[in-house]
Amino acid sequence: MIPTIKWDNNCIYIIDQRKLPEKKEWLVCRTLQDVVTAIREMAIRGAPAIGVAAAMGLALGSRTIKTNNCETFRKRFLEMAWQMKLARPTAANLRWAVEKMVGVVEIMNHNTVEEIKGALKKESQIILERDIEINRKIGQNGLQLIPDKATILTHCNAGALATGGYGTALGVIRAAHEAGKDMHVIVDETRPLLQGVRLTAFELIEENIKATVIVDSAAGYFMRKKMIDLVITGADRIASNGDTANKIGSYQLAVLAKENKIPFYVAAPLSTFDPDLKNGDLIPIEERDPREVTSFDGHMLGPEGVDALNPAFDITPAKYISAIITEREILKPPYKGSIRDLFGTDVK
Amino acid sequence: MIPTIKWDNNCIYIIDQRKLPEKKEWLVCRTLQDVVTAIREMAIRGAPAIGVAAAMGLALGSRTIKTNNCETFRKRFLEMAWQMKLARPTAANLRWAVEKMVGVVEIMNHNTVEEIKGALKKESQIILERDIEINRKIGQNGLQLIPDKATILTHCNAGALATGGYGTALGVIRAAHEAGKDMHVIVDETRPLLQGVRLTAFELIEENIKATVIVDSAAGYFMRKKMIDLVITGADRIASNGDTANKIGSYQLAVLAKENKIPFYVAAPLSTFDPDLKNGDLIPIEERDPREVTSFDGHMLGPEGVDALNPAFDITPAKYISAIITEREILKPPYKGSIRDLFGTDVK
Repeated sequence: MIPTIKWDNNCIYIIDQRKLPEKKEWLVCRTLQDVVTAIREMAIRGAPAIGVAAAMGLALGSRTIKTNNCETFRKRFLEMAWQMKLARPTAANLRWAVEKMVGVVEIMNHNTVEEIKGALKKESQIILERDIEINRKIGQNGLQLIPDKATILTHCNAGALATGGYGTALGVIRAAHEAGKDMHVIVDETRPLLQGVRLTAFELIEENIKATVIVDSAAGYFMRKKMIDLVITGADRIASNGDTANKIGSYQLAVLAKENKIPFYVAAPLSTFDPDLKNGDLIPIEERDPREVTSFDGHMLGPEGVDALNPAFDITPAKYISAIITEREILKPPYKGSIRDLFGTDVK
Repeated sequence: MIPTIKWDNNCIYIIDQRKLPEKKEWLVCRTLQDVVTAIREMAIRGAPAIGVAAAMGLALGSRTIKTNNCETFRKRFLEMAWQMKLARPTAANLRWAVEKMVGVVEIMNHNTVEEIKGALKKESQIILERDIEINRKIGQNGLQLIPDKATILTHCNAGALATGGYGTALGVIRAAHEAGKDMHVIVDETRPLLQGVRLTAFELIEENIKATVIVDSAAGYFMRKKMIDLVITGADRIASNGDTANKIGSYQLAVLAKENKIPFYVAAPLSTFDPDLKNGDLIPIEERDPREVTSFDGHMLGPEGVDALNPAFDITPAKYISAIITEREILKPPYKGSIRDLFGTDVK
């Protein structure tokens, strides 16, 4: 398994996912801005991986703040945190990681700048390592939902590449594989950026798990033919009522799964939850460059002047979700109560 | 409007739709086999256009039969008809057109070979011209279903290029445009061959109708956001109960439309119906080369050795279809009765 991201010699190395599986190129980030750009341009993507990158990017960025004055440092760091928060709008994990890092600075108000910088680096490493552990726990928890010889549909990439390592949805599949279960994974290609065929198929083949790619609009056909036993995806943000933002196309799969009486599972760490958010319609949906749709490899697909709309995510209402697999437990509907219990807060 | 297909100087000229909109290249067919290959490799596609091409291909093929003996001619012609019938399996219009042409040979059993060849050419011209007339009638009939200022979702290409000219689903949109209605058409890109972004967007822009392309998996997102007023597609084959085969992805749109209380219309000529077929599950679904999914422009998208499944069509059960617009009338559910009435047969 290629590491998604690593810290080496005061640089962050990000495997450039836009070039996989054809080329394995490391993108070297030396500044906060390098990491923000890598996130925005999707050299690294996947909600948990973005969270890790944000934390590591802030640790890296903090080292470029040339001051010994704690107050000046704190001010500059908060500006960086703000900049990082705005890199992409939908994934909850990005905000979660930024807030974790800001928390480190805030509690260390009696330490030196050097000490804070060291703590930030350490915190980002903990976030990375904990993410992998969390994924393994999600995998272990989700295992029971995967029957032997299951044909599983997944969308986009919620694998090792979308996380610190191991994966959320693919983590469950990986855990089932490690437990000796036989599986066949049907992989939605996931237009426009093709994370399914490029990243998920790549991870599955590496793991010796049978993978078959389909175009996104063939998923319903295979469900109706009773060739899919369950659907599992990752998530970018989960509201307090269980409504889930995930890669564009997830909503369609969930509706089709319900129509065809197939369970639809979401696998995500607690850092993906936004327990303060009443419902999914309040989640900001990123609109990306229309050229991701209308061109391929710099080559125009459509007629000159053709227009496109390119929402990167959609909202799957909780009523279509059979269960949400977290590192703590498997949540079952109704989610409002179970998410409230999990976060122990009075959810608005 | 570019003609889809034309007969000139004892050749058939087919606009090569694999190269549109970038290049306007005519494929010159001199033999039956040339036309069969053009259909199979989708230089020409769309159920009504395939019907026209099959008829013209058989007229062309008949001219290469070098005999004055009617029985020998008839035998060779039936072999050609069989070969043409097998070019692609799903579209009813292909079989319909082949049977029309065989009918010409069968009723002319007292004529010379030259006379039969002349009649075949004439019949193929009639099929082409009638197809355009039929599309205009479909357009006129469908007009009433299109409210002014509607946002319409369509999938694949059911336009002039999918027919002899004018179009079925796009024919209705074209007729509404000619009648002065304001519209915005959301165009599914239609993977794997991208007929939506390449052909439908091209036709709409040529006609000055507002067109916006989306990836296939974004359709549900826009439906849920109440940004789509109706969905309209063409059809490749309609069974006696109204179940409809159409481009892969149509079934998903129909389920999503129903879930979001949006009408889902099918526009198709009577030649698309298969009134002898009990239901859609009996329609043969073409499986095409997996490389249409896993590569683009000869360039591999996924990892080496990645497998794909590539069904070219799916079946939309009649219960999801709000109306079927034909050149005769608009059929409404339940279709079993109305299709039986239309064909005046005891449908099995």
